[in-house]
Amino acid sequence: MTDTTDPRLTPLAATLPASVPFVGPEAQERIRGVAFDARLGANELGFGPSPKAIAAMQAETAEIWKYADPESHDLRQALATHHGISPDNIMIGEGIDGLLGYLVRLFINAGDAVVTSEGAYPTFNYHVAGFGGVLHKVPYKGDNEDPLALIEKAREVGAKLIYIANPDNPMGTWHSAATIQQMIGNVPEGALLVLDEAYVEFAPEGTAPAIDTTDARVIRFRTFSKAYGMAGARVGYGISTPEVISAFNKIRNHFGMNRAAQAGALAALNDQPHLAQTLKQVAEARTRIGEIAAENGLTALPSATNFVAIDCGRDGAFAARIVSELGKAGIFIRMPFSDPQNRCIRVSAGPETELDLFAKALPAALKAARV
Amino acid sequence: MTDTTDPRLTPLAATLPASVPFVGPEAQERIRGVAFDARLGANELGFGPSPKAIAAMQAETAEIWKYADPESHDLRQALATHHGISPDNIMIGEGIDGLLGYLVRLFINAGDAVVTSEGAYPTFNYHVAGFGGVLHKVPYKGDNEDPLALIEKAREVGAKLIYIANPDNPMGTWHSAATIQQMIGNVPEGALLVLDEAYVEFAPEGTAPAIDTTDARVIRFRTFSKAYGMAGARVGYGISTPEVISAFNKIRNHFGMNRAAQAGALAALNDQPHLAQTLKQVAEARTRIGEIAAENGLTALPSATNFVAIDCGRDGAFAARIVSELGKAGIFIRMPFSDPQNRCIRVSAGPETELDLFAKALPAALKAARV
Repeated sequence: MTDTTDPRLTPLAATLPASVPFVGPEAQERIRGVAFDARLGANELGFGPSPKAIAAMQAETAEIWKYADPESHDLRQALATHHGISPDNIMIGEGIDGLLGYLVRLFINAGDAVVTSEGAYPTFNYHVAGFGGVLHKVPYKGDNEDPLALIEKAREVGAKLIYIANPDNPMGTWHSAATIQQMIGNVPEGALLVLDEAYVEFAPEGTAPAIDTTDARVIRFRTFSKAYGMAGARVGYGISTPEVISAFNKIRNHFGMNRAAQAGALAALNDQPHLAQTLKQVAEARTRIGEIAAENGLTALPSATNFVAIDCGRDGAFAARIVSELGKAGIFIRMPFSDPQNRCIRVSAGPETELDLFAKALPAALKAARV
Repeated sequence: MTDTTDPRLTPLAATLPASVPFVGPEAQERIRGVAFDARLGANELGFGPSPKAIAAMQAETAEIWKYADPESHDLRQALATHHGISPDNIMIGEGIDGLLGYLVRLFINAGDAVVTSEGAYPTFNYHVAGFGGVLHKVPYKGDNEDPLALIEKAREVGAKLIYIANPDNPMGTWHSAATIQQMIGNVPEGALLVLDEAYVEFAPEGTAPAIDTTDARVIRFRTFSKAYGMAGARVGYGISTPEVISAFNKIRNHFGMNRAAQAGALAALNDQPHLAQTLKQVAEARTRIGEIAAENGLTALPSATNFVAIDCGRDGAFAARIVSELGKAGIFIRMPFSDPQNRCIRVSAGPETELDLFAKALPAALKAARV
């Protein structure tokens, strides 16, 4: 893409690269000239959403000539009931990515400090940079984000935002509710903890702290992109106090939601038996990925998500060669960006047929990568 | 909605109201306790999109577990062919509203001057305020936006952005391509003309200037929300030089598009015979709205859009009473916000059955409003 030095841009915009946090699989497919056989790189849910969600979206498509309800009233109401909170505690938006953009805009002025982990979610970093925030990164502790170090760093630099994902992406690891609750309790005055729970439905009981809608020190994000299998629909939500939530109304794109997506998310939420089935499928797929790793002499990390990080035992360059070789063989996977997590490859917990293709392609990819 | 004085907000965010540019009809229906019988207020296309677009969206819903292609490659390619330009001249986004937000963010720093017309599109103003821009408004000239006055004001205040919609919303009036081309030619150094062509497909030949993709003084916006009948899908696009277009990649939500919406827009674009039929239906509906106005002693303004502004001959308070009375009778319409345009009510060119309901309800609404 052409970079631009348009003198009319704001000084901040002029400094930003015209970059993309992730290259999509479609772009890779256009370069390859042929589609991937297995799409296991973006932590999408290959098992798909509830058939009731699909039916609801298809039905609502007949009404697509109407703008969506800017208040997402029905979905917000249903989520409130689901979580046992008030609709005033919930902000629906265009995926967690969209909501993170609004959040950073609300809280970060140029020069403000933000704390995250080295190797955590790049799209959050993209938004922080996009509003001129200054990122301070702390290392993982082993394969986990380090809540204590994040809090300490936030105190040290006077951070306005602190980001943590629980469970973590890209490693799949997780902290207990007690650990996260302790972290919330230690958020410094003037800071807001951004608790990204995109994958929390996949995690064991006891991973998510109880929701406390009176605690303005934390905003939690959930999504229909992962466990509900609707990544392409763009529905996420934030949970916090009414004051933090209502601030989004100052700046958000009020008519930004897709109308069919709203209906689909509502139907997906109402089909909890399907969610239970999904969690079972994903757990089985994680086990299978672990077996495939072991068969190849590699170590799968424990995961509380719909993906598995596989430790390939060498450096990032080695893992990158495996990703590349698998890509040539028609298998789309990704890998962590930062050292030392980038000794791993990251494989989404997909359908058996796709995992079989991965299993089949991995030995040759490893062999080629070892040369 | 609760206002917030959260001390962690940026100074700018703290000053912004938690306001909504428009209240949606669904919110009004929840207050009424019953749905409207005619939805003629939001310039949606009551005739609906191409059946092929609906079918494409429904088919793609089965793939909604996948994120959309962040480059919107296929749609961008098709639009490039359609307009005889390059894909590098096109940025797809979450409706014109979403793209306007990105545009203002790219070009407007706090305190920067922006020029628009008093009574023009409120959502543009919302974005400008949201980034701390200073709005300078010039009056309409009669029922038209005033290109010369906009340019003069921009020169006077050193504006970074100049907004004009052609055809205009909320009045439905339009300028010739020659007038707009002259305006582009007079854009002051350092300014960018934001040419909102959301309604241009409804306008007579000779309304849109030829697209010149070498001219960085203008960015044009088009949408699938109006003539293509997909307001609830959220697909709009900007057209400009590759440099202006690529700047969006610095800050946009790359994975923000709905996957089914992309497929639907592509199918809608490819069904030009359906668009032709839509334009015929809308023209007939405009004529019918004009007849209804005349039957009630009111004057319909000429329109190059899918709505008609009806001059009710008195002040804004009178028009507001008509809107309110029609609402009570189950007819959702809107009206311009500013004097003197607010002497009008604004009625979308909808299906005959809905216009019949409007025709039936209008005399009593007028009578009640006159008391």
